Amino acid sequence: MKIDKQHIEERNQQSLDDHLESFDYIANRLTKNGIEVENVVQKLADFQVAIPSWALGAGGTRFGRFGFQGEPGTLEQKIDDVGAIHALTQTAGAISLHIPWDVPKDYTAIKELAQSHQISFDAVNSNTFQDQKNTTKSYKFGSLSNIDEAIREQAVEHNNEVIKIGNKLGSKSLTVWLADGASFPGQTNFQSALKQTQKSLQEIYASLPEDWKLFIEYKPYEPNFYSTVIQDWGTSFMLANECGEKAYTLVDLGHHLPNTNIEQIVSTLMMKGKLGGFHFNDSKYGDDDLTVGSVKPYALFLIFNALVYGMENNPQNPYPAWMIDASHNIKDPLEDIIQSLEAIQEAYAKALLVDQKALNEAQQNHDVVKCQEILQDAHRTDVRPLLQKARLQNGGALHPLKTYRSLGIRKQLVAERGANSVATGL
Amino acid sequence: MKIDKQHIEERNQQSLDDHLESFDYIANRLTKNGIEVENVVQKLADFQVAIPSWALGAGGTRFGRFGFQGEPGTLEQKIDDVGAIHALTQTAGAISLHIPWDVPKDYTAIKELAQSHQISFDAVNSNTFQDQKNTTKSYKFGSLSNIDEAIREQAVEHNNEVIKIGNKLGSKSLTVWLADGASFPGQTNFQSALKQTQKSLQEIYASLPEDWKLFIEYKPYEPNFYSTVIQDWGTSFMLANECGEKAYTLVDLGHHLPNTNIEQIVSTLMMKGKLGGFHFNDSKYGDDDLTVGSVKPYALFLIFNALVYGMENNPQNPYPAWMIDASHNIKDPLEDIIQSLEAIQEAYAKALLVDQKALNEAQQNHDVVKCQEILQDAHRTDVRPLLQKARLQNGGALHPLKTYRSLGIRKQLVAERGANSVATGL
Amino acid sequence: MKIDKQHIEERNQQSLDDHLESFDYIANRLTKNGIEVENVVQKLADFQVAIPSWALGAGGTRFGRFGFQGEPGTLEQKIDDVGAIHALTQTAGAISLHIPWDVPKDYTAIKELAQSHQISFDAVNSNTFQDQKNTTKSYKFGSLSNIDEAIREQAVEHNNEVIKIGNKLGSKSLTVWLADGASFPGQTNFQSALKQTQKSLQEIYASLPEDWKLFIEYKPYEPNFYSTVIQDWGTSFMLANECGEKAYTLVDLGHHLPNTNIEQIVSTLMMKGKLGGFHFNDSKYGDDDLTVGSVKPYALFLIFNALVYGMENNPQNPYPAWMIDASHNIKDPLEDIIQSLEAIQEAYAKALLVDQKALNEAQQNHDVVKCQEILQDAHRTDVRPLLQKARLQNGGALHPLKTYRSLGIRKQLVAERGANSVATGL
Amino acid sequence: MKIDKQHIEERNQQSLDDHLESFDYIANRLTKNGIEVENVVQKLADFQVAIPSWALGAGGTRFGRFGFQGEPGTLEQKIDDVGAIHALTQTAGAISLHIPWDVPKDYTAIKELAQSHQISFDAVNSNTFQDQKNTTKSYKFGSLSNIDEAIREQAVEHNNEVIKIGNKLGSKSLTVWLADGASFPGQTNFQSALKQTQKSLQEIYASLPEDWKLFIEYKPYEPNFYSTVIQDWGTSFMLANECGEKAYTLVDLGHHLPNTNIEQIVSTLMMKGKLGGFHFNDSKYGDDDLTVGSVKPYALFLIFNALVYGMENNPQNPYPAWMIDASHNIKDPLEDIIQSLEAIQEAYAKALLVDQKALNEAQQNHDVVKCQEILQDAHRTDVRPLLQKARLQNGGALHPLKTYRSLGIRKQLVAERGANSVATGL
Repeated sequence: MKIDKQHIEERNQQSLDDHLESFDYIANRLTKNGIEVENVVQKLADFQVAIPSWALGAGGTRFGRFGFQGEPGTLEQKIDDVGAIHALTQTAGAISLHIPWDVPKDYTAIKELAQSHQISFDAVNSNTFQDQKNTTKSYKFGSLSNIDEAIREQAVEHNNEVIKIGNKLGSKSLTVWLADGASFPGQTNFQSALKQTQKSLQEIYASLPEDWKLFIEYKPYEPNFYSTVIQDWGTSFMLANECGEKAYTLVDLGHHLPNTNIEQIVSTLMMKGKLGGFHFNDSKYGDDDLTVGSVKPYALFLIFNALVYGMENNPQNPYPAWMIDASHNIKDPLEDIIQSLEAIQEAYAKALLVDQKALNEAQQNHDVVKCQEILQDAHRTDVRPLLQKARLQNGGALHPLKTYRSLGIRKQLVAERGANSVATGL
Repeated sequence: MKIDKQHIEERNQQSLDDHLESFDYIANRLTKNGIEVENVVQKLADFQVAIPSWALGAGGTRFGRFGFQGEPGTLEQKIDDVGAIHALTQTAGAISLHIPWDVPKDYTAIKELAQSHQISFDAVNSNTFQDQKNTTKSYKFGSLSNIDEAIREQAVEHNNEVIKIGNKLGSKSLTVWLADGASFPGQTNFQSALKQTQKSLQEIYASLPEDWKLFIEYKPYEPNFYSTVIQDWGTSFMLANECGEKAYTLVDLGHHLPNTNIEQIVSTLMMKGKLGGFHFNDSKYGDDDLTVGSVKPYALFLIFNALVYGMENNPQNPYPAWMIDASHNIKDPLEDIIQSLEAIQEAYAKALLVDQKALNEAQQNHDVVKCQEILQDAHRTDVRPLLQKARLQNGGALHPLKTYRSLGIRKQLVAERGANSVATGL
Repeated sequence: MKIDKQHIEERNQQSLDDHLESFDYIANRLTKNGIEVENVVQKLADFQVAIPSWALGAGGTRFGRFGFQGEPGTLEQKIDDVGAIHALTQTAGAISLHIPWDVPKDYTAIKELAQSHQISFDAVNSNTFQDQKNTTKSYKFGSLSNIDEAIREQAVEHNNEVIKIGNKLGSKSLTVWLADGASFPGQTNFQSALKQTQKSLQEIYASLPEDWKLFIEYKPYEPNFYSTVIQDWGTSFMLANECGEKAYTLVDLGHHLPNTNIEQIVSTLMMKGKLGGFHFNDSKYGDDDLTVGSVKPYALFLIFNALVYGMENNPQNPYPAWMIDASHNIKDPLEDIIQSLEAIQEAYAKALLVDQKALNEAQQNHDVVKCQEILQDAHRTDVRPLLQKARLQNGGALHPLKTYRSLGIRKQLVAERGANSVATGL
Repeated sequence: MKIDKQHIEERNQQSLDDHLESFDYIANRLTKNGIEVENVVQKLADFQVAIPSWALGAGGTRFGRFGFQGEPGTLEQKIDDVGAIHALTQTAGAISLHIPWDVPKDYTAIKELAQSHQISFDAVNSNTFQDQKNTTKSYKFGSLSNIDEAIREQAVEHNNEVIKIGNKLGSKSLTVWLADGASFPGQTNFQSALKQTQKSLQEIYASLPEDWKLFIEYKPYEPNFYSTVIQDWGTSFMLANECGEKAYTLVDLGHHLPNTNIEQIVSTLMMKGKLGGFHFNDSKYGDDDLTVGSVKPYALFLIFNALVYGMENNPQNPYPAWMIDASHNIKDPLEDIIQSLEAIQEAYAKALLVDQKALNEAQQNHDVVKCQEILQDAHRTDVRPLLQKARLQNGGALHPLKTYRSLGIRKQLVAERGANSVATGL
């Protein structure tokens, strides 16, 4: 399945006048306010977010899963799905593979397929939170942190294997989400678990190719309900420091306790040059993995404000790896991702509109009211025409979701794959 | 202190062209989408929010208070402050008095003053969470819920007194925020405390004039840190039912446990005809009492979406009393309120833009993606020109905050009242 | 599999002296303080908690499940498991079935089997949160609350079927946990969903046999992550009132927002005569479904304090149905339940030791320090000898967990059922 | 005011038999289980907790304060109060002063007075969260983090002054609680604020005497409601590392987001040798500053379990400074502190009873059930006789609270100081 560029152009043609009118209006106003609109549009056009291979089928909860028709049954089909999203949005130019769910059989063919969609291979992800059929030792009581050396070795070995696979595909980073922890007080010794984790990570780090990065994720709870070994950014940051220069913290928006100020964490990490990657999603209660921007779009904007500041002022921090990490329990996964990408671009665009000079001045003067006005002015601006312009420039759809529906993509996928195909993944 | 209408008009003149351009643009687009723009603007123009008399001076925390210059030292000055806000925003046409902080000496003069500002008297508020100089019995261990009958009587009597004061001013409702509760397990008997509260409220209810309403607030914690007698909407709703038809629940945005779905509570109460009043503020952690819309503007929009639906579909529910209830710890209180009013009107305007018919249809079809698109489409629209139009129509300022600053109102207030005046209140 | 009483007695014999010494010590001290020890022990002996049929195998999270050997593969084996727990603890004299996971084939045989274990059939539970193989309509977007009438009918019909099955077994109540809600703002109309739910519940209520009760559970989130139709006790209480006298609220300890004061909810419900049932578990973050008492034993004690008060002072409230509702992800499910039962009995025993008269007096005197001392005195008492005595009296094990291990029950189960049997359930 | 030792002994005599009986019982049982009881008692006797000078009068909330009679009006009286608590409990052998509330006039006299009560001077505390009468620059918008250099200098200078005062009294550490932060998004630049804070702390650190320590507190929110500069342990730890070897993190139990696993933080810090001090209190919602152990005693036990482990296994970590930091809004402050000290000792005693060897073994075997049993066995033990023994050994009261009441201490204080004396502090 591949979307014909011409079909997109035809749809664009229908709403082009409307787009031009709205773009002219907003571009004029922003220009009057000193914004370099072309520059903003170019940044939006350049911003690319990786799609995780495990999020193209229906997700579920511990209470069950409602399937979705036309799910991709193979890695090839997953890449096709990302290709379709990218063709429409021009924002999804990468895929992030999860091992062992997505081990390629024919590397050359897979790379060619991806290239045909203009898709590159972002961070590879290891999995030591589930037992695999071919493993002999169980991760039930932990993997990299396990008190049992043989289990730790198996987990380290798996990560090394993932690096090798990623290397063949052109990936340049490994993301470790360590689910290890305890569900009951006393179950583990915090200090031993942390020490073992550090040692395991250092071993993985030692296997990292020269030009690779190691991303260390953190999360306070779930699937363990008393403690997680890498419970917060402080622990991840400490471990990254103990590993070395190529190790970084990865922030997942849903991996925080209630009311955490995430933008402050982002700022601290970038100041320290240690923000490696970012997982987008949204949530109201816990790690709900909802569509990005569907619940707290202003919080997302504030986070992007911190990211934009960091990208402009922190040369010590590498350009972060961006990825969506959501679970699509009740929506068409592709539509869900399209909505997420729109919300990400919206937040990014608004953050780019923040008048940093005026903000700095107001902060100097302790003019709190003015500081708020500056942020709100950016956030209240309707930036959709800018996003459209960026997509148009790259050959994407003015209205990705409408075009997706109008082109009947899901129907095609069901026709091709059948109603009962099931994607590997959670 | 009274703002000269002509001064406002002069300032408006300077940005009138800009306003007209932006209004035309948005009005055109909305009209194309089937929105009756005049109707929306009229609703915004009609929407009035009461200002609490205690929020015109600097607030503080238990760790101290940083004063603000030019605070109103008398009730007259407080009314002047609300008058200034109303002159600029045309949204603050009422004041809500707190007794005993704001007992008028000369009722006729006070009413005339308010009238000269086009300010009416909204709900009156009683205070049984602090001991007053003229009272003999302490509320340290509770007031309406106290196990000691004499204390309960004093508290009921105070509420009756508040009703009398309000009645002389033209108020039509009493708001009871009952801080009673316990800071330690075992301190009170939950059942007794609830029974006593019910009895006390029923006694106050019996003193209510025929055309009055009783608003019963709820709050999970603070100033008591183990339990509050009226801890949630369920308890308030139960008590309102036990009192009678004129008793209602009052929702304060900050009075909820983390992650509470407030818009659902609003919907349930309106369906049951029991949403009496609403206190606006914003918060990230607890009852932070921040500027409305400064932290979670999308949540505010969702709440307004529920309110708009209820106002249009629930004739069984009276028109709710709207009030700001915030604490201005570091901002000029008048600027803070102006920002709050703007945020309220913004959320209301966006809620009015929601295409209810299309939403209903999408809900019928379980088209979750579409439902989200409809809400987001409304929320992403820049509605500021509509707000400006509504203010202009009523004789207010296109840009209330800028005008406030450009007119040097705070400077005038300091000149009149001095730097060290202190407002009664928290 | 059935535990031989004599084996239990043999084990008891080994630690009987130790038990007698400790029992004498604590009984003497309590007696001196005016406690009627025999009375307390009898209450403990009488206290019976139902075991859910779905919690006898390993549970899991959305990230996977680690199996457990010797899981019960049939309803008969599940009853055997509960029988084993009951033989040891003498506290688990009932089973609570989940339909369609546990539909009996031969009712007479099943009832006889249960009777042979001295197990009765507690509340039956319906399931409309998952699609079943034999159903034609999906609950993906809701069941009792669904906007689609045909789906609601199917869900009501399923509940009626569950009542019939329960009736044949001697159950006297139906528990409805309604997972319905929304994962995204706008997905459903709150008012419609609530109205439809009320209507559906009333239809189920109408099918209830005369001597049955309907228990309506509430939960703020999960598996829906934006809203749940019956989100809190207030909504459940309202619905129970709309249904009628036989409808009650059911409290599950894990179904609350962070920091909720559950004991206050319990007190309010019992005062109103509407606490129907109780699901025990423990949690640190959300609905973690951990072993009872493993995280917050003092909170459990405070809840039992409210329950004991209600049972003694609220004749308007029926005797509540007690059930464990936990998920056993990493422990042997039977050991987990034995630990839960011990924790429940401990909390109950300590609540029974609270000097209610002195507490009431201290409350009257606002002696907050004394109130706390009274609760803490009860809680600091080591009540294990009382629990042992109650079990001994009923023919159970002095040390259920040790006896379970010493008798090698799990080994027997694996031998009988094999290592790979899988229990129906989540 | 000074309690006569003989009066305490007289009261002890009355309940000595009871104590001996209970001590013998528990000592016997523990000895059988391999516990060295004398060793445990000695550790309890040695454990001393500092009392903050600001917590001897009534505290309050932003909604007001209910005074308490007989509050200490001078530093001398505050020391007398701590002396009384120490005489009874033998656990409060230190006072922690807050500057500028408690600047001594006559150092020699103050030191002699403290010595006469066997009270030493623990960490001194600076205050840059309030403006003082003699300061010219306001901390309204921050102190050590302020963007204004002159304000930072004033704040650093104040801290240096506090060190000098402490040095004259024999204190060996400075605790910095930095309330700085922002109440609104955009108000401050996170990176600048953090950099300025680091610089300021380094300047204070440079003024530290050779044998002193610097304790850096963290807190997520309040009095700022959007962000706090030192929001979590990770930030404090980072800053301590940037300062040097004598800088440490200080943990206050109330300074965490909901559901934080504090014992894990404690473990990590001790492993890294960076846990400097500890502030005890309890809370249900936020920084409620309630009596220690009144809400979550099991969590306190788990924290002590981590502390005991660290004290025994982490020579790299200095012996931590212990302090109570609570607010006494409705209890007699001295009674409140006595209850807190009892709860601390209880948790410590129970943690000392944990069979570390068996726990380690169970952890090695992944015997989660057993791990829980070991912790619960310790926690379920009634350790009050051990605490009594430790106090008796040191010359304190068997029952401090009862003795306090029976000796009529508060009555004496009111007689000496009057009903309306007010303590300096919050």
